[in-house]
Amino acid sequence: MDLSQHPAVRRSVLGALQEDVGRGDVTTRVALEPGLQGSAVMLAEADCVVAGVFLVSLAYECCDPRLDVEVLVSDGAAVAPGTAVARMRGPVASVLTGERVALNFVQHLSGVATLTRQFVEAVHGTSAAIVDTRKTVPGLRLLEKHAVHLGGGMNHRFGLDDGILIKNTHVALGGGTAAVVARARREAPLGLRVQVECRSRAEVEAALAAGADAVLLDNQTVDEVRALVRLVAGRVPVEVSGGITLESVRGYAETGVDRISVGALTHSAPAVPLHLRVETVA
Amino acid sequence: MDLSQHPAVRRSVLGALQEDVGRGDVTTRVALEPGLQGSAVMLAEADCVVAGVFLVSLAYECCDPRLDVEVLVSDGAAVAPGTAVARMRGPVASVLTGERVALNFVQHLSGVATLTRQFVEAVHGTSAAIVDTRKTVPGLRLLEKHAVHLGGGMNHRFGLDDGILIKNTHVALGGGTAAVVARARREAPLGLRVQVECRSRAEVEAALAAGADAVLLDNQTVDEVRALVRLVAGRVPVEVSGGITLESVRGYAETGVDRISVGALTHSAPAVPLHLRVETVA
Amino acid sequence: MDLSQHPAVRRSVLGALQEDVGRGDVTTRVALEPGLQGSAVMLAEADCVVAGVFLVSLAYECCDPRLDVEVLVSDGAAVAPGTAVARMRGPVASVLTGERVALNFVQHLSGVATLTRQFVEAVHGTSAAIVDTRKTVPGLRLLEKHAVHLGGGMNHRFGLDDGILIKNTHVALGGGTAAVVARARREAPLGLRVQVECRSRAEVEAALAAGADAVLLDNQTVDEVRALVRLVAGRVPVEVSGGITLESVRGYAETGVDRISVGALTHSAPAVPLHLRVETVA
Amino acid sequence: MDLSQHPAVRRSVLGALQEDVGRGDVTTRVALEPGLQGSAVMLAEADCVVAGVFLVSLAYECCDPRLDVEVLVSDGAAVAPGTAVARMRGPVASVLTGERVALNFVQHLSGVATLTRQFVEAVHGTSAAIVDTRKTVPGLRLLEKHAVHLGGGMNHRFGLDDGILIKNTHVALGGGTAAVVARARREAPLGLRVQVECRSRAEVEAALAAGADAVLLDNQTVDEVRALVRLVAGRVPVEVSGGITLESVRGYAETGVDRISVGALTHSAPAVPLHLRVETVA
Amino acid sequence: MDLSQHPAVRRSVLGALQEDVGRGDVTTRVALEPGLQGSAVMLAEADCVVAGVFLVSLAYECCDPRLDVEVLVSDGAAVAPGTAVARMRGPVASVLTGERVALNFVQHLSGVATLTRQFVEAVHGTSAAIVDTRKTVPGLRLLEKHAVHLGGGMNHRFGLDDGILIKNTHVALGGGTAAVVARARREAPLGLRVQVECRSRAEVEAALAAGADAVLLDNQTVDEVRALVRLVAGRVPVEVSGGITLESVRGYAETGVDRISVGALTHSAPAVPLHLRVETVA
Amino acid sequence: MDLSQHPAVRRSVLGALQEDVGRGDVTTRVALEPGLQGSAVMLAEADCVVAGVFLVSLAYECCDPRLDVEVLVSDGAAVAPGTAVARMRGPVASVLTGERVALNFVQHLSGVATLTRQFVEAVHGTSAAIVDTRKTVPGLRLLEKHAVHLGGGMNHRFGLDDGILIKNTHVALGGGTAAVVARARREAPLGLRVQVECRSRAEVEAALAAGADAVLLDNQTVDEVRALVRLVAGRVPVEVSGGITLESVRGYAETGVDRISVGALTHSAPAVPLHLRVETVA
Repeated sequence: MDLSQHPAVRRSVLGALQEDVGRGDVTTRVALEPGLQGSAVMLAEADCVVAGVFLVSLAYECCDPRLDVEVLVSDGAAVAPGTAVARMRGPVASVLTGERVALNFVQHLSGVATLTRQFVEAVHGTSAAIVDTRKTVPGLRLLEKHAVHLGGGMNHRFGLDDGILIKNTHVALGGGTAAVVARARREAPLGLRVQVECRSRAEVEAALAAGADAVLLDNQTVDEVRALVRLVAGRVPVEVSGGITLESVRGYAETGVDRISVGALTHSAPAVPLHLRVETVA
Repeated sequence: MDLSQHPAVRRSVLGALQEDVGRGDVTTRVALEPGLQGSAVMLAEADCVVAGVFLVSLAYECCDPRLDVEVLVSDGAAVAPGTAVARMRGPVASVLTGERVALNFVQHLSGVATLTRQFVEAVHGTSAAIVDTRKTVPGLRLLEKHAVHLGGGMNHRFGLDDGILIKNTHVALGGGTAAVVARARREAPLGLRVQVECRSRAEVEAALAAGADAVLLDNQTVDEVRALVRLVAGRVPVEVSGGITLESVRGYAETGVDRISVGALTHSAPAVPLHLRVETVA
Repeated sequence: MDLSQHPAVRRSVLGALQEDVGRGDVTTRVALEPGLQGSAVMLAEADCVVAGVFLVSLAYECCDPRLDVEVLVSDGAAVAPGTAVARMRGPVASVLTGERVALNFVQHLSGVATLTRQFVEAVHGTSAAIVDTRKTVPGLRLLEKHAVHLGGGMNHRFGLDDGILIKNTHVALGGGTAAVVARARREAPLGLRVQVECRSRAEVEAALAAGADAVLLDNQTVDEVRALVRLVAGRVPVEVSGGITLESVRGYAETGVDRISVGALTHSAPAVPLHLRVETVA
Repeated sequence: MDLSQHPAVRRSVLGALQEDVGRGDVTTRVALEPGLQGSAVMLAEADCVVAGVFLVSLAYECCDPRLDVEVLVSDGAAVAPGTAVARMRGPVASVLTGERVALNFVQHLSGVATLTRQFVEAVHGTSAAIVDTRKTVPGLRLLEKHAVHLGGGMNHRFGLDDGILIKNTHVALGGGTAAVVARARREAPLGLRVQVECRSRAEVEAALAAGADAVLLDNQTVDEVRALVRLVAGRVPVEVSGGITLESVRGYAETGVDRISVGALTHSAPAVPLHLRVETVA
Repeated sequence: MDLSQHPAVRRSVLGALQEDVGRGDVTTRVALEPGLQGSAVMLAEADCVVAGVFLVSLAYECCDPRLDVEVLVSDGAAVAPGTAVARMRGPVASVLTGERVALNFVQHLSGVATLTRQFVEAVHGTSAAIVDTRKTVPGLRLLEKHAVHLGGGMNHRFGLDDGILIKNTHVALGGGTAAVVARARREAPLGLRVQVECRSRAEVEAALAAGADAVLLDNQTVDEVRALVRLVAGRVPVEVSGGITLESVRGYAETGVDRISVGALTHSAPAVPLHLRVETVA
Repeated sequence: MDLSQHPAVRRSVLGALQEDVGRGDVTTRVALEPGLQGSAVMLAEADCVVAGVFLVSLAYECCDPRLDVEVLVSDGAAVAPGTAVARMRGPVASVLTGERVALNFVQHLSGVATLTRQFVEAVHGTSAAIVDTRKTVPGLRLLEKHAVHLGGGMNHRFGLDDGILIKNTHVALGGGTAAVVARARREAPLGLRVQVECRSRAEVEAALAAGADAVLLDNQTVDEVRALVRLVAGRVPVEVSGGITLESVRGYAETGVDRISVGALTHSAPAVPLHLRVETVA
């Protein structure tokens, strides 16, 4: 089941159409002959990594199944301004009615992929992977994680059920690192790894002793991270997080960490500008 | 029916919980005693206009109805870093399980409200209102428009059905300004105004002659706008749009336009940082 | 997105099938060979304006996608008794199973269109348009408004969000006409007109002074309406409403009002009789 | 599970609110202070049988759970003009926002109950019961059948799955009355009776011979019905149908038939006029 | 509307896919090239009555519409181990992703059909039919009743609304057999038969006197049943129920009862083993 | 979010009510006075592990919120025949209407928990844990996995997205064990372990060399398993599967394997008999 078949994605597209089209596109209905046929292209207006172009097909298919949508670039392609990413042929009224929804998906997801690519390039040559978080825009997690992947990032947990991340609060309320990790190994579904958040040498040592599969160093300086990476010494993957920016990311990457997780990839990526141009009308 | 009762908002909150919690919060379940009671606060980490705090109540109510959520600031309040915006009391496990969803809503909507406020302040003292667009994140339009309102902005159309905006394409394909405006007046639902997009003196004159209720000047320079505002001379409201930034907005505002619409308010607002802190456990 | 693609319409059709078919058409299943193929026609039994024929296709497509439905008249056509409005070909069992749902939609919507047409003809030659209201049958508003349009009527608001109608109660509770109209102009979405309900000369004058875009004269006599139309003198459109019947409508129309809104169009239109006839079986 | 808990009814109420309120009641929001409290009554404007008053509670509860709705008459009560059927107390804005939906349900269902009562009274003193059909308004069948019951009518099948009605077409395509009735007895779910539509003496005899539990005489004159009732001689219940009106119903009832089914009860009942009056504001 | 079109069945299939696939089939995505094409067969591993094969098509169609599914046996066929029941052709990744859901439906429903067949064979030569109950697995009733039918059983009520079964409790709380049966005949929808549960000679006589259409003898010994069957003497159908097993069923059947209802058909049928084998890859 | 709040569980309960109650409980409505109040208990009829009692509350709350349900045993308790597991107080009609749905959930889930307990006891004293599979009844996975946990079993993957299980087919189509495991480590979400299915010494060695987190020995004899367990020598957990029964399970457990997965726990557990008894009526 690829993403374009996923029920959550289809609900998202339908929901977006309902919130935009509402009871109908009044302007287009009064302006255009219903039978008018033509074609249009969706164009990027900036350098970007395009993400989510299959949603153009999906949105227009929900809007009017008579429309023929041809996707012109592969999802994840880096394109220059002026590149046509999709072409629509069929009833022009429907092209105009679905335009905003199609654009809203692609401009947001391309924004996520493009920002991810910038982070990935900033750590080029180091051993660090760029990783996403659960700090996503409500309703769009599957799609945003897909965009991160297209931008060259790795996906962390998709939710609270496909990975175990024992944070400080869990340790504090659960009786200590050893006890919580042990319970996780005994009671959690068998397919899940156990990662433990650590903020000090002692916490890292406790996590390793308890049998953690990975550690997360949250809100540490570059120097602190470097020291803790040395302490772990490759026994388990080390991840860092906490307000890391395009400016600071390389410093962290050079400490030898395995992964750097960045909430901004999904919660603060600016939209990529795109627009639609009607080409021919017959 | 206020927003917290609106079916689209409730679906959005439920959908966000489903995508984050999935089949259950494994970590919290293995870490915490199910009966553990306590309280926690949600804290802003930066100066911001808080928006969507009622969604903290709604998200936690869906997550665990035994939780008691107290909203500590009014929606739309400007707060300083460290301000507590909501307090949760009850089963601590549920506080942790719902945390991310609650934060994801508030950080995004507060981002929209905060950016709107910056634009509003940038045009202070002029006659221009800051207005949103339909360039919203799919699924969140109602909430984002609410955040724009809290930030001091005005709401443009919520969708294609609560206002008529005749764009260049409509005019070109529909037989000219006069014909399209006339059909809009004759056939559209009676409660809707007719706005016409114009890119030149001639187009403004055609729109006014056709009986437009408002004009939209898209992608014009400040000087062009100033001239066209003078041409309209207060007969109908004049709106400008097209890539206007915090840097350029004041220039436009001082031309005497009535409204400035800004897509970035909703599609590119960076998230406001917030976090949750468990206070007491009993 | 035309009506046959609209999610609310599709939900309505699916819901009607579920309520009628339930767990299955027992009678047809025991009576007919499953493989039996044939054709059938849907026939009008009275003079009427046919409305909603596309729902025959939609209902049968949900019932059995192997059925081929040919719509034989345009939506909105005036037909004589005995006219075939649609022909179905394919599995006869499915034709029988979906029959009632298809008929129930068309008989109701044709009833609305036919009654609208009668009102429209009753005001022929005057300047008055016949307009619908929000007094619709729950769940069918989009379709009923479509039927009114086919019958030659105009559509008023589709809901509480695509037009502003300030009634007496709003004025009384909101601080007077001037205050309420001013707030509407300042705070409502920008695409909406402001109409004010008036029951006297003073109220009409207040509405005009406040900047209303239209007035609604509710429950006035023909003479009162004539006087108020003269008072308005074409400055804004004037609408009348309140229990207006086929008998009384012409009197109102001749006062010079612009629109006459009639709740009965949608809440009290008698169904048009239609039936289905199996033609051939192979 | 009474009707107010039934998922189909709740979906219907929510759907009606969504179609009317849309993105929000703009007029009320700009007109009224959000905190304004008060009370209002819903009043009948004509003699009628009230039906569906519990939907006033349900609609307002979905609209704003802070509203307190008191139903003042029992469902099915015959009331005089001016009777208050429900009283709402709480936020006045919500009273106004939900008003139309609440009224639309009650005016339609009371129309059905009132028309049913008229038919029931028309056959008073005979042995005939008034029965509904599947000719209902799409989406409202459960509620309309409830209204028929309140008006003193009996309910026929709710759908194609809770009763077997072998029509002429079924007989013709299924190999004759005997074969079809036999298959129905052998293969249909065990709780269902078998009724056979008959249009002649021969068909009635075939149905009785085949073991029908009841017969339906469709589109027969009063004289034909009288003869066939005599033929059946009480062996099974006899039902008549086919365009029977308030004028013609007594004639049929006096033939001795057991039941008279009338599609108009549900598809052509005129709405009962009701309105809402705000009483006090504090 | 056959079962593969029924909304409840489609919801069930979609729900099963969502619970199994979740956010995606991670293993298959990392293991296989997305473009890999091939074919696979679903094979029975035991003698069984196959039921629900159309759900293989339905599940795979929801999973990936590019897959071509060919059903190789008729629903209800008795097959030997090794029989191929369906063949899938297309993207191999999708074949693997949908495999478990398709198998889970067929293994369960074939289990129900196979157990039913065993009961039917156990009473072969008697007048007793094997009948199902409402003791079904939540969410699968329509499908399980279909499987019972395929196994040669008869369907009792599908729910509380398509048949009247007056149990001891109803009699006790409702004022006695005569009163309750009378009310059922007067007030229930007209298409429903009335069955009465009886546990003694007196109760059977009361039921017959009251006009019951059938009786149900619950938790009686074979001897008791034989005596009561003699008492009823064919006036109405007699059904027995209550913990009847493959061992005890023949004894009951030979008493002359008309129907034997068995909850185990649906609530305790062991799954039939089946598996999927990838045949060719290109 | 505990299970009783989980949207999938609530949908399941609502769906079960809809399929059973349909348009209403006709028998109870005609038999009982609507106002009749009383209490009833749900009683186990056999030794069992009770599972899913909270669904009694949930089902009755959906059926009639006025009912008060008291759960009398903890979920997962082992009880003797005659034990009361829940008591309902309130409108007796609603107790009867919701009875079957409540029983159907508890009888099935208690069957799963009871069978799991039997397997767990059969391996008592060994190091082997009993583990479930994805061979569940469609729509009930979350609940069945909960029942397995209550019976003392461990949960394997809940779906295709919360664990990686590389089967023979994945290896064959994906380029060999080493390649597929490497891609899983590089591209899968970071929280997931990698388990590899093995059927020979060579395959186990390949899996370990590739860095598998666990191995699954499918369809091996006890002797084969013993040898492979020795080969693995505790480096990773070893799981066995493939038609293991209550008779054969101890033999496998004594080989030293870590886990034994058993599809029958969920796909073939016979229902536990329970019934409802009305206690008092007032």
